[in-house]
Amino acid sequence: MKRKSFREAECPVARALDAIGDWWSLLIIRDAFDGLRRFSEIQQNLGIAKGMLASRLREFVKLGILELVPASDGSAYQEYALTEKGRGLFLVVVALRQWGEGHLYQKGEARSLLVDTRTGQPVAPLRLYAADGRAIDWPETRVESKVAERAL
Amino acid sequence: MKRKSFREAECPVARALDAIGDWWSLLIIRDAFDGLRRFSEIQQNLGIAKGMLASRLREFVKLGILELVPASDGSAYQEYALTEKGRGLFLVVVALRQWGEGHLYQKGEARSLLVDTRTGQPVAPLRLYAADGRAIDWPETRVESKVAERAL
Repeated sequence: MKRKSFREAECPVARALDAIGDWWSLLIIRDAFDGLRRFSEIQQNLGIAKGMLASRLREFVKLGILELVPASDGSAYQEYALTEKGRGLFLVVVALRQWGEGHLYQKGEARSLLVDTRTGQPVAPLRLYAADGRAIDWPETRVESKVAERAL
Repeated sequence: MKRKSFREAECPVARALDAIGDWWSLLIIRDAFDGLRRFSEIQQNLGIAKGMLASRLREFVKLGILELVPASDGSAYQEYALTEKGRGLFLVVVALRQWGEGHLYQKGEARSLLVDTRTGQPVAPLRLYAADGRAIDWPETRVESKVAERAL
């Protein structure tokens, strides 16, 4: 479809999706979290066209989600590193992962696993909490629109 | 780009993104969480072409993320409702929202807010916890690949 921009949206979900762009772009971010830092590594891992990847990486740099840094091995290469804003996408990736784990695998299918490096155990499922610490779910929430900054 | 399928991917993030499809499709799910249930409501709210929306809704029904149910007002209309699998996307939407809130708004810009219906207070930021209850972040995690079911 003709892409409609949600860059100015009042809804943070819409803005976030607008910034992330095409459906596969978040896999670049996932790769960055997994330690892939070079164009060639990412290109090989995702198997997408070089031109498309280059354009998407440029966009992520422009948005301040990735930054170009000197290669960690001292070579002349440049590498892509997550900025603080980019690292903020970690829970988006984890939430997608946990939904995928719970709903998109048949019994017995091999899948990757996110583990706590200290114990080697899988991380706990994400949960949503109210400000007072109660665990809550969708039915206990609502979206209020047009909230001015002063009310936040 | 020519769409590469990650339907069989070992990585749950890739499978999840494959199931969700185009970047704007998650806005349909957001609308469902916000209580929009009719084709015309969703179409009007997103402002996307009817054919595209119809095709994406069909896909979501096929994937078991949405289901068609009789209209809640007893009329002859059908409505789209989230299945349990679809409701599982709530934390994906919340994670996107919180990232957007934190990184994509200028000071003073109006935005919508997710609140706890009991108290009217904004929900707490999502956090990741280890199995033993420690709060952890990206640097304390790693992805293990090709984990067989029996090891889970």
